[in-house]
Amino acid sequence: MQIKKLKGGITAAKGFLAAGIHSGIKPLPLLDLALIASIRESAIAGVFTKNRIIAAPIVLNQKKLKEQVGQAIIINSGNANAFTGKKGLADAEKMAKTTAMHLEIPSKKVFVGSTGIISKLLPISIICQSIPVLTKKLRRSGHLEAAHAILTTDTKPKEAAFQANIGQHLITIGGMAKGSGMIHPDMATMLAYLTTDAAIAPQALQIALRREVDQSFNCISVDGDTSPNDTVLCMANGTAGNSTIQLKTAEWMAFCSLLHETCLSLALQICHDGEGATKLVEIVIRGTNTTSIAKKIAQTVATSLLVKTALFGEDPNWGRIVAAIGRAGVPINPRKISISFNNVFVVKEGNIVGLAADKRAHKIMKGQAYKLNISFGKSKGFYRLWTTDLSYNYIKINASYSS
Amino acid sequence: MQIKKLKGGITAAKGFLAAGIHSGIKPLPLLDLALIASIRESAIAGVFTKNRIIAAPIVLNQKKLKEQVGQAIIINSGNANAFTGKKGLADAEKMAKTTAMHLEIPSKKVFVGSTGIISKLLPISIICQSIPVLTKKLRRSGHLEAAHAILTTDTKPKEAAFQANIGQHLITIGGMAKGSGMIHPDMATMLAYLTTDAAIAPQALQIALRREVDQSFNCISVDGDTSPNDTVLCMANGTAGNSTIQLKTAEWMAFCSLLHETCLSLALQICHDGEGATKLVEIVIRGTNTTSIAKKIAQTVATSLLVKTALFGEDPNWGRIVAAIGRAGVPINPRKISISFNNVFVVKEGNIVGLAADKRAHKIMKGQAYKLNISFGKSKGFYRLWTTDLSYNYIKINASYSS
Repeated sequence: MQIKKLKGGITAAKGFLAAGIHSGIKPLPLLDLALIASIRESAIAGVFTKNRIIAAPIVLNQKKLKEQVGQAIIINSGNANAFTGKKGLADAEKMAKTTAMHLEIPSKKVFVGSTGIISKLLPISIICQSIPVLTKKLRRSGHLEAAHAILTTDTKPKEAAFQANIGQHLITIGGMAKGSGMIHPDMATMLAYLTTDAAIAPQALQIALRREVDQSFNCISVDGDTSPNDTVLCMANGTAGNSTIQLKTAEWMAFCSLLHETCLSLALQICHDGEGATKLVEIVIRGTNTTSIAKKIAQTVATSLLVKTALFGEDPNWGRIVAAIGRAGVPINPRKISISFNNVFVVKEGNIVGLAADKRAHKIMKGQAYKLNISFGKSKGFYRLWTTDLSYNYIKINASYSS
Repeated sequence: MQIKKLKGGITAAKGFLAAGIHSGIKPLPLLDLALIASIRESAIAGVFTKNRIIAAPIVLNQKKLKEQVGQAIIINSGNANAFTGKKGLADAEKMAKTTAMHLEIPSKKVFVGSTGIISKLLPISIICQSIPVLTKKLRRSGHLEAAHAILTTDTKPKEAAFQANIGQHLITIGGMAKGSGMIHPDMATMLAYLTTDAAIAPQALQIALRREVDQSFNCISVDGDTSPNDTVLCMANGTAGNSTIQLKTAEWMAFCSLLHETCLSLALQICHDGEGATKLVEIVIRGTNTTSIAKKIAQTVATSLLVKTALFGEDPNWGRIVAAIGRAGVPINPRKISISFNNVFVVKEGNIVGLAADKRAHKIMKGQAYKLNISFGKSKGFYRLWTTDLSYNYIKINASYSS
């Protein structure tokens, strides 16, 4: 199967429209309210935060998702509507209902997203007053302004679109995302919205989405470390005209590959735009006895402040990497550790390679993107994730007085 | 029992001498080699790193500790002698043997400590050449130079000494410590050395030390997150003339209290001197069903980058605290959460108190030290730990090119 990268984003697939406006949650001229709509009823699948504190929009979406039918998603930025109690849930419902009314569709088909500061009530009247304007602006070319309207501390919008022939039909998946506090994946809300013109059975869509989120968004993230608002939603409206894709068929596998490309592209854009990040580092763990050991090591190295500051300092200080491996809480044999930056080994089977190798590694670390490989021998355990460095700007972005 | 704080450090207890010199591991004029010695054989107890990568000095100390007898400890800074293989172990042994020779005591009674960069071999000949000078400098007033000689990125030496009557005898405990990468407790080596003139059974000393380390040094740290070199050693030489303290007697309990004061004082000095830290925040969790739930929540909040940057920004952004609680991976009821800074509540049983409270909390956060209380109701689960903020200086200290 050949996968083609397209321009565009959330409206790349047939039958989807989008818009983004300034409603007044954020100061002018920032966009803060986005709408995605399908021209017809869609299958919808969702993956949500594992945080025990669940924001109001997620509570509402989870309820709606039981019917697996959707047609529109309205998202605001600037306010997360999290830890806002019953009033917060009523506000999320009102956002959905008002949107449904103006789109002239049932309210149960409208999903809701919010991102921004936690614990403040939504300015719901401002939002509802803006919905008529927003719905009128819906159009094929509205994808970029929608992508802008969901951002918080992100420095740029994140869009992706991929296309492939599945069976006899040209299928497109498009998407947009936000998320930027990615120094550590729990650090800020990650939102991603996907749309496809494929016809696919709702259960097949749900399982595909869960699977591909695990291999993309969750690989720039540490398990269980999520904000109260994290959301990935995917609508499939069937306008491509293919016969409905069923679970675990060849078409489904092909659909998963296409979905994977779209999710990974958005995930890496999020990682690269990490708050204050200057580097995108792919950490690859090989040769552990199990996948879960590899994952534990990858996550410990990826979240070590000392490793992250060394990445920022372009310092092949692999002593810090070794120390992080040692405290990952899993059995390892120090004599089998090999560490390389791209193809330059600094430690080979427990032995120090030497100063010349460290210098070559330092050169690689001057690049914006590279691989950090850690190997423990010949067993089959494997895990890979992406991380960023920790820079002055991370502190600057997050230490400013917000309340 | 009345506990009296004394001036002085590692030589405050009778019969202990110390010295610190510049040997040449670090650039002039920095001190880099310290020695502590007792005038007679002592009981010795130790608590070591939980990291799977164990530095050479720890391997050696653990072996020596089986006999529970010690008389001197030699410590270098500037080089951790970690991940240095067989040569590293031989170097640690040589440090102990050379010291023993010049002190004219058996080598098994000399313990070793190292801190500094990981993965470089010790300049062992420089160290051994300096040992004769070091042993000649041993004296009662050498405590402060010894405390200086074990520092790495610390900005100041850390000493403590406390005294109390136990039974009919005046008992003193003194100590010194280093450790500074305390943004996260695994981040840099923590070394602490304690001396006492009490006579105490070796097993009683070991159990007391483990117990009080857990309530002090481990409360500025996250379980299992340790460097390959972390060490706490305590020598008891019995020069106070008391009859030997036995396990779980009234005298032992009194000794534990005295030890607690000394350990906590050193631990808080370490925390306060955290790399780039501007705040010392005591996080107190109450009302959880179990202690381990309280501990998990305390550690998740204390290590959250978003919380730490908010502490630096003096921002009562309790939404970040709530989000951290939610991702701690333990069952909690959001409606029961109360959060206060000192005595100012910003959240009370799940309800937002309001902007005026946030402003009062902001004022408290301008202080250098305060309490962050998080309560979940009336159950008995309790845990407390100390953390610091995350500042620009942390990045500066840790991002400079070291290799």
